[in-house]
Amino acid sequence: MEYRFSPQIESIPATTPFIGPETLGRRVGRPMHLRLGANESLFGPSPRVLEVIRDHAAEVALYGDPEAPELRDALGGVFGCTRDEIRLGSGIDELLSLVLRAVAGPGDAVVTTLGSYPTFDYGVRACGATLVQCPYRADGFVDIDALIAASDDDRVRLVYLANPDNPSGTLTPAADVLRLEAALRPDQWLLLDEAYADFADPDELPKVPTRRLIRTRTFSKAHAMAGMRLGVVQAPVELLAQLDKFRMHFGVNRLALLAGLAALEDRAHVASVVAQTRLLQAQISQKLPGRVRRTWTNFSLIDCGSKERAEATLAALLQEGVFVRKPAQPPLDGYLRVSIGPESVMEEFLGALRRVESGA
Amino acid sequence: MEYRFSPQIESIPATTPFIGPETLGRRVGRPMHLRLGANESLFGPSPRVLEVIRDHAAEVALYGDPEAPELRDALGGVFGCTRDEIRLGSGIDELLSLVLRAVAGPGDAVVTTLGSYPTFDYGVRACGATLVQCPYRADGFVDIDALIAASDDDRVRLVYLANPDNPSGTLTPAADVLRLEAALRPDQWLLLDEAYADFADPDELPKVPTRRLIRTRTFSKAHAMAGMRLGVVQAPVELLAQLDKFRMHFGVNRLALLAGLAALEDRAHVASVVAQTRLLQAQISQKLPGRVRRTWTNFSLIDCGSKERAEATLAALLQEGVFVRKPAQPPLDGYLRVSIGPESVMEEFLGALRRVESGA
Repeated sequence: MEYRFSPQIESIPATTPFIGPETLGRRVGRPMHLRLGANESLFGPSPRVLEVIRDHAAEVALYGDPEAPELRDALGGVFGCTRDEIRLGSGIDELLSLVLRAVAGPGDAVVTTLGSYPTFDYGVRACGATLVQCPYRADGFVDIDALIAASDDDRVRLVYLANPDNPSGTLTPAADVLRLEAALRPDQWLLLDEAYADFADPDELPKVPTRRLIRTRTFSKAHAMAGMRLGVVQAPVELLAQLDKFRMHFGVNRLALLAGLAALEDRAHVASVVAQTRLLQAQISQKLPGRVRRTWTNFSLIDCGSKERAEATLAALLQEGVFVRKPAQPPLDGYLRVSIGPESVMEEFLGALRRVESGA
Repeated sequence: MEYRFSPQIESIPATTPFIGPETLGRRVGRPMHLRLGANESLFGPSPRVLEVIRDHAAEVALYGDPEAPELRDALGGVFGCTRDEIRLGSGIDELLSLVLRAVAGPGDAVVTTLGSYPTFDYGVRACGATLVQCPYRADGFVDIDALIAASDDDRVRLVYLANPDNPSGTLTPAADVLRLEAALRPDQWLLLDEAYADFADPDELPKVPTRRLIRTRTFSKAHAMAGMRLGVVQAPVELLAQLDKFRMHFGVNRLALLAGLAALEDRAHVASVVAQTRLLQAQISQKLPGRVRRTWTNFSLIDCGSKERAEATLAALLQEGVFVRKPAQPPLDGYLRVSIGPESVMEEFLGALRRVESGA
């Protein structure tokens, strides 16, 4: 007799959204000495975060406080809401998965952009819902009209919009986001994934009514805490009450809760990271004239001319121990996606790119 | 129009397995100065763990390595298997939830002991399966005969056995565990939750064939890393391949992966914690003659005479800022469950207990 598994799980294809840089390093036989493929912040976390981790190390013996009122209050200040509309998780990934399980299942459908954040798609498959993927527009931006058209279906429970988007790096204009929100039925949800929001101009981010809005943020990008696993969801209390019935209440590690508060308090650090990122993006554009797309994130997109050339360049860079990624879907599949780090790191990257492209 | 949620999630009752000590402190208006209710280790982690956290604090900018081969190799050494049979998660809680989703769903049933680890029951409700709960035996041990009888049902996909058990503190003899395993059908699973295994005599733990065994361990108890969120599952590769299709590959925080390896390497620290725990358990038994049950865990059970007296004592201790818990189900619902900490902590607890009991 064979093993027996839940049919819903057994029917999922065996894929993982991302292969980590350590794994890639083991495959090519050398570690990645430049990690520019996961949009981690090589500017590092706030010194206050490091201080909190070191000072409170012995507290790892204790479970974290599942309510974390101080941190949720501080986040309420960021979002303009009370802590009642805020929950924390082990990164946005965990929260996407919880939200999807709460609102969708077999027989339901969920709309997203083909080639946008793959861990969202992974969560959709895991909850048993059907994934409806709308291609990017020809200019590489999210196709809001297509999302609206695809949502006009009784089965659709939720629409996902990463804003700014990864991997395209584009920002959907606020008016378009509001148009999408207004087009949804009252029983549908808009999931606005704002992982990269710290890198956009606050005035450009849409002020969406919270009635059917689920918004996520992370400490992994501008706050440089990817390895700490701390994500945030803001949503109506009715939705959060559903999450509270099955989420892991003690799942966020204690140091992340303490460090998250310290990170929020050091606004100057984030402002400096954002300013440096923009400056370095401008420098790279100058050094690779005509090849760099504008992005609203902590990565740049570098045109390689074709999908095949981008894939070859990416593979050659990996062999050199330089970890970058590339969009998988058109029209940006001929670009490399390169995280922005400090100037010395970017110089090293540009040197490697020149070597690889001249040798190819 | 009302909000619409997944019917499976909406049908779950609004419960949480545990209320944290910080929440209890806010309720009674004073923080818990003695945390003896969550079986955290007040002996603290290995000094090597603290060193690793402090030395690698800046690495929190980077995602963890989802493969973690060194740590999985070290755990393979503990379990007597290769890393292929090992996966890591954000504590056992996450792994229980993943395993349940992989093997059970609506229409299926899962067998456990009424009053045993409540987060397991929580995971069963979340996956949509029916929970079949067998009471403890009259002597407070897990009723293996009842688990076997309840498993003889086509709907049953998995049987849960915490060994040593929480909150009873009992160890099921190896012969009984093997008898349970042998009674299951080839398409059923035995989930052996060994969170407290470090406190039992290794010779007393059963050597179960891995064919239909899923085993979990944690760094939260003997290793004093509850706040780091690091749990381990050992299972046949066929089951792990299912988990790999929907688990959070980057979900374990980077410091936990590094600290876990350091904790495993410091065997002397764990041995010392276990030895001190046993000594202090013996001392408490002497100081409360006739009231303390033998346990195979890092907590002791103190007889209060009746469920009502135990509840009143627990409530009075909370008012004093002393956090303990109690088993919810007979026959041990007249006992307090008290985590074992260093001698000075236990003296403080005994003083509070005397005050409360003399004043009551």
